[in-house]
Amino acid sequence: MICMEPIGTIRSPYTETSQIPKGLGTVHEALGTIEVAPIFEAGLTDIEGFSHLFVLWVFDRATGFDLVGTPPADTRAHGVFATRSPRRPNPIGLTIVKLISREGCCLRVSGVDMLDGTPVLDIKPYLSSIPSNELRRGWLAEAEERNQVARERDERC
Amino acid sequence: MICMEPIGTIRSPYTETSQIPKGLGTVHEALGTIEVAPIFEAGLTDIEGFSHLFVLWVFDRATGFDLVGTPPADTRAHGVFATRSPRRPNPIGLTIVKLISREGCCLRVSGVDMLDGTPVLDIKPYLSSIPSNELRRGWLAEAEERNQVARERDERC
Repeated sequence: MICMEPIGTIRSPYTETSQIPKGLGTVHEALGTIEVAPIFEAGLTDIEGFSHLFVLWVFDRATGFDLVGTPPADTRAHGVFATRSPRRPNPIGLTIVKLISREGCCLRVSGVDMLDGTPVLDIKPYLSSIPSNELRRGWLAEAEERNQVARERDERC
Repeated sequence: MICMEPIGTIRSPYTETSQIPKGLGTVHEALGTIEVAPIFEAGLTDIEGFSHLFVLWVFDRATGFDLVGTPPADTRAHGVFATRSPRRPNPIGLTIVKLISREGCCLRVSGVDMLDGTPVLDIKPYLSSIPSNELRRGWLAEAEERNQVARERDERC
């Protein structure tokens, strides 16, 4: 058993899960703030140099887990480790945010998809990307393709 | 306090920290296996469709943390949240691996930089990349530049 204490809190425009954009083609551009606890402020030294950050946080309003479930982006079920479902064996969320500015222990960021008050476990610099042409995106690419075909069919009708 | 139990274990060629490649320009290509506990096997359904995965794991052989420290890639100190240091307030590691194959509850992957026996907390699909031309890489880019200048000077001597 590994026990952790939050290092800070997310301030987000979302107070309920239903407000968070979901599903195919969703782009997360919401502004928010990562409030790091003052005792950890020194840990943010030089973070301003990075354009993007990984934020590790807790799905603190999720309870229990489903090993297989249907995500908002598809009508078919997939394994939890092949989705970003909040109902995971260990309820850790991972979001890549864009760092806009830092003021003391507060990081202003865009791209939040967490609820207001979400506990933050860790922040890491985003150092490099896998080139898009090397990525395979499994069921998500298939769901996008089915969606595209359905839209084209609807447009022809 | 948030408590978690590992969902699996990393099998890696590295048994000691000193064996893991570190520093500027390091490329992680080592092969390894993520052994997911059999009770979670259904959670891997459809994971084969993804080329890359995020692995969240525990720095189980690190103790304590430093808010500021000098990473292997630089001679200057930086805040822990601006580095991948194992000595973090919450000792969670994040590695992007390439998925080679799956056999039941074992995922064969490349790109491991964890020690053999490392506990795994979560696996998530890698869905998209930030384009390289949108990334700023802070102290790491500066350290690379200083290193490059030093190498060119040495070559001229």
